[in-house]
Amino acid sequence: MVNVGYYNGVIAPLEELMIPANDRSNYYGDGVYEAVYGRNYKMFAVDEHIARFFRSCRMLKIEPNITPDALLELFDKLIHQCDSHEFVLYWQMTRGTALRGHAFPKGVSPNLLITVRPHVLLDNGSKRFKLLSQEDNRYYFCNIKTINLLPNVLANQAAKDAGCDEAVFVRNGYVTEGSHSNMAILKDGAFITAPLTNLILPGVTRSHCIEICREHGIPVQERAFSFAELMDADEVIVMASSVQGVAVSHINGKEVGGKAPALYETIRTAYRNKWLKETE
Amino acid sequence: MVNVGYYNGVIAPLEELMIPANDRSNYYGDGVYEAVYGRNYKMFAVDEHIARFFRSCRMLKIEPNITPDALLELFDKLIHQCDSHEFVLYWQMTRGTALRGHAFPKGVSPNLLITVRPHVLLDNGSKRFKLLSQEDNRYYFCNIKTINLLPNVLANQAAKDAGCDEAVFVRNGYVTEGSHSNMAILKDGAFITAPLTNLILPGVTRSHCIEICREHGIPVQERAFSFAELMDADEVIVMASSVQGVAVSHINGKEVGGKAPALYETIRTAYRNKWLKETE
Repeated sequence: MVNVGYYNGVIAPLEELMIPANDRSNYYGDGVYEAVYGRNYKMFAVDEHIARFFRSCRMLKIEPNITPDALLELFDKLIHQCDSHEFVLYWQMTRGTALRGHAFPKGVSPNLLITVRPHVLLDNGSKRFKLLSQEDNRYYFCNIKTINLLPNVLANQAAKDAGCDEAVFVRNGYVTEGSHSNMAILKDGAFITAPLTNLILPGVTRSHCIEICREHGIPVQERAFSFAELMDADEVIVMASSVQGVAVSHINGKEVGGKAPALYETIRTAYRNKWLKETE
Repeated sequence: MVNVGYYNGVIAPLEELMIPANDRSNYYGDGVYEAVYGRNYKMFAVDEHIARFFRSCRMLKIEPNITPDALLELFDKLIHQCDSHEFVLYWQMTRGTALRGHAFPKGVSPNLLITVRPHVLLDNGSKRFKLLSQEDNRYYFCNIKTINLLPNVLANQAAKDAGCDEAVFVRNGYVTEGSHSNMAILKDGAFITAPLTNLILPGVTRSHCIEICREHGIPVQERAFSFAELMDADEVIVMASSVQGVAVSHINGKEVGGKAPALYETIRTAYRNKWLKETE
């Protein structure tokens, strides 16, 4: 299959996969998700994504009806049904299927949806992103990876409409994260990224970048940084599993960064090599 | 049928109705909804709900592929397929069906889901609600009736866990609204309710209550009121199509209201009579 779909034990081409209208994803966005990338049928950092998935479930009081090991086994089976050895595997778990009503339904099991699609993760060495800033008007639990993503959709579309690659959220003058990425800046040799609060997702790529910085003796500051600091940074880096680490050339049409290309390249290459090695 | 389901032209018992996994409701909650109540196969205030629906669509740049008249005609057909003449009709429209990706997909049509379920709207004359206050941690476009409802789900469940009927959101010390209702207080003969900003839904029941107050010479104040004012009110009123207007007896376990029962009864009865007349 090109795009593989899985829902509660049923496997079908994703375009034909059906779910009940009463899945609580459909009425409330009452669920959580993850996405992992891989090649050679190997998933990168899948254990970290699985750990975050269980954490998200716990925070929403969704009780997974599958163990991490069984999940891994299922993923492995599904990625081998995809036509491409380079892929993105997405999964989400929702609270269950029930007639509509806000409170948690009783006696239901969570629903598990998995998709596997061909996806080649490019080496972004020569690529630089353009960003559009957007007021961060989201809810106050951005640390949970839920499927209540409408503000992210709208911000991402605004960026696209402006000819940009990604939106960067700013709340009360401080940079939080992107519409589906974390943000970091390089300044005077240090790697600076927003701290882990309820305002940002604890990104897997973000944590890998921090680890790489520590390995390379690059000082790391996990602290709130302002929009002014973003615009004045030596480099701005977008971090996400979907793009790894990508530097930024423009924000709101103004040139930014480009003042510490060697330091950026150190981090980017180290990350890329980690990816290549783990998915060899 | 007991519970009627409709999706893009297909009619089935709601419990059996299926939708594509790629409906954007499922990945992003990228859609809007409405619910109207009725009896004798007549819908109460349906024109106002339809107007708000088109407004919600406009605000999210979802372009409905159906006219208000065709929608009404479809509703009429579906409510007559429900076993009960007293019902709740729910509908939602999502941006469309496409492989997952944040930005708006191109060349897709919106999806229309409609459900009709038996529902008797009780006369709440002798009923008083218990509320639990919750920090309003939602996004900043609560004026759009979207299906990104997870914070509402969590607040509603917290209320239920505490033995309460509804949650009341408080943002920065001020009362916004309920988990699926608007809030008003009566104080010194006046009807006070939060103003129409991006922090609350422009409720249909809310606007009917305001209209009734004006007809009865009751002063109306559309202004922010604090949690302290809520606790000290002569009466607290929960307003929603699902409950009409219901007074409150307790908030967070403390007795509130009960000091202007006649004034509350005037508003409640006027609303109830309006409902009875329009659905006769």
